[in-house]
Amino acid sequence: MLTVLFAADPVFWDDYRPHLESALAAEGVGAHLTRQADPATVDYIVFSPGGTVRDFTPYVRARAVLNLWAGVERIVGNPTLTQPLCRMVDPAMTQTMTEWVVGHAMRHHLGSDVHVLGQDGLWRADNPDFPDVPRRLASERPLTVLGLGELGTASARALAGLGFPVTGWSRTPREVPGIRCMSGPEGLIRALTGAHGVITLLPNTPGTENTLNAATLALLAPGAFVINPGRGVLIDDAALLAALEQGQVGHATLDVFREEPLPPGHAFWHHPRVTVTPHIAAISRPVTASRVIAENIRRGEAGLPLLHLVDRARGY
Amino acid sequence: MLTVLFAADPVFWDDYRPHLESALAAEGVGAHLTRQADPATVDYIVFSPGGTVRDFTPYVRARAVLNLWAGVERIVGNPTLTQPLCRMVDPAMTQTMTEWVVGHAMRHHLGSDVHVLGQDGLWRADNPDFPDVPRRLASERPLTVLGLGELGTASARALAGLGFPVTGWSRTPREVPGIRCMSGPEGLIRALTGAHGVITLLPNTPGTENTLNAATLALLAPGAFVINPGRGVLIDDAALLAALEQGQVGHATLDVFREEPLPPGHAFWHHPRVTVTPHIAAISRPVTASRVIAENIRRGEAGLPLLHLVDRARGY
Repeated sequence: MLTVLFAADPVFWDDYRPHLESALAAEGVGAHLTRQADPATVDYIVFSPGGTVRDFTPYVRARAVLNLWAGVERIVGNPTLTQPLCRMVDPAMTQTMTEWVVGHAMRHHLGSDVHVLGQDGLWRADNPDFPDVPRRLASERPLTVLGLGELGTASARALAGLGFPVTGWSRTPREVPGIRCMSGPEGLIRALTGAHGVITLLPNTPGTENTLNAATLALLAPGAFVINPGRGVLIDDAALLAALEQGQVGHATLDVFREEPLPPGHAFWHHPRVTVTPHIAAISRPVTASRVIAENIRRGEAGLPLLHLVDRARGY
Repeated sequence: MLTVLFAADPVFWDDYRPHLESALAAEGVGAHLTRQADPATVDYIVFSPGGTVRDFTPYVRARAVLNLWAGVERIVGNPTLTQPLCRMVDPAMTQTMTEWVVGHAMRHHLGSDVHVLGQDGLWRADNPDFPDVPRRLASERPLTVLGLGELGTASARALAGLGFPVTGWSRTPREVPGIRCMSGPEGLIRALTGAHGVITLLPNTPGTENTLNAATLALLAPGAFVINPGRGVLIDDAALLAALEQGQVGHATLDVFREEPLPPGHAFWHHPRVTVTPHIAAISRPVTASRVIAENIRRGEAGLPLLHLVDRARGY
């Protein structure tokens, strides 16, 4: 009988416990799921920031730390962590992210806010606020997705499926069918140049901080939109606000921030061409995420390679 | 040398003339495009409502009337029209319609208005206005498209491509890959029952008036959304307002109306759960529409069947 320590934020215990227990049973793993255990007896640790474990040193027998979320920036640099660390790749999270990205990309593409906000009786058929008359087709609006992990790749493919010419950029070379793929620092410049919209889905690592800054925002097509469902640190906030002021960025929709909840006084809340959403783009589901955790424990016990293993050196 | 009479609304002359002339030349059709001609000399008539021809009797030699728009309800019943009538099927119009339908369906699916309208500093992470927590996936939100012509079929397929289970309904049986297709009066009841959203893309004929009425709206899942980019007459306005009041319909986004522009005092403008857009869902483009007109003239001259011929009896 394995001991699986639920060391994630306690607020998730009630949601996850039944699904983790049934997923472990479905995988044929005999396990005791608990929130408290003698560290020396723990076989696997289910983790999220805000949980009960900060020092992994006493968990001498633990075969893996299984993160409940996709982002690992709040654990990967923990010097006490010597055990293998796995990210969450939850199909429901990938699907919710893809839907959110498509919905907000279409919102900017169509310019639909002008109508959502303008229900005042004025028939805006030839709207001077619409820079695109006749309206631009998706095929005429090149978009760039920064990051070609699970979430970036799925979002890029969905956008391409709607007719947008999509460029994807990743640190190291990737190939994705239907996506113009670029990599490395020079690839980033080419990927952003002339883009009508950019979606940031990079992991939070020291190398990705401020990927969108004054210099890179200046590469976009004038009036481009920015959608950030990734991590707040990917964008230099002051540079984005300046680019919005200049009209270089036409609109930004931001789901993630350096500080969350975004403080009520923050300029992003009050800028007419910024839309703040409250870190809702992607949502894990206990039922599907629990299956991923259970599958990884079964694999660990069977001596198979763990899924979604984090490369500690690159940080994701 | 053929005589092609541009009898569409004169406001379109400057936009269409150069594209029609070059499209005719590209098809190898020797034609004189004009706004004025002796009716007895006219070979083809390019038509839109609001144009210069109401009585087709004197056009004894005209081989076809080529409508600039997809909808033909303002000409199909003209008793003087004895010539073949063709609808417009413009690929740019199909694409713009598809994009508009996808964008607004995603907007309702995600509930993004709550954020677009709520940029007030309040972090709406667990929003009581969101009935779906955890958020429903596209695969859990069945949608129904009424009408499986060019526009309905393209929209249905794009929505299915994003993961929505899509039912399509048409008067006569159709088959569309990936779409659950239904037809006839009983099929309509089955197609609407339990739908989380309905998109109306039927032609305007006597048989389609008030397709969405008190009885059919009551079949939808409670809180369903309604998107009408087709024709205003497809919906019984009073029944829709009543269904909105009862919460049976959660939100309606309407692009077309019985009277356009929609009068400023109309209840649709002022209802908090109705979004009015100004007949912009689908947009023809002179360059692509002109190619369709020129191709049909070439076909007519070559003795080939005309494309997009209207069945006068059924009305589209």
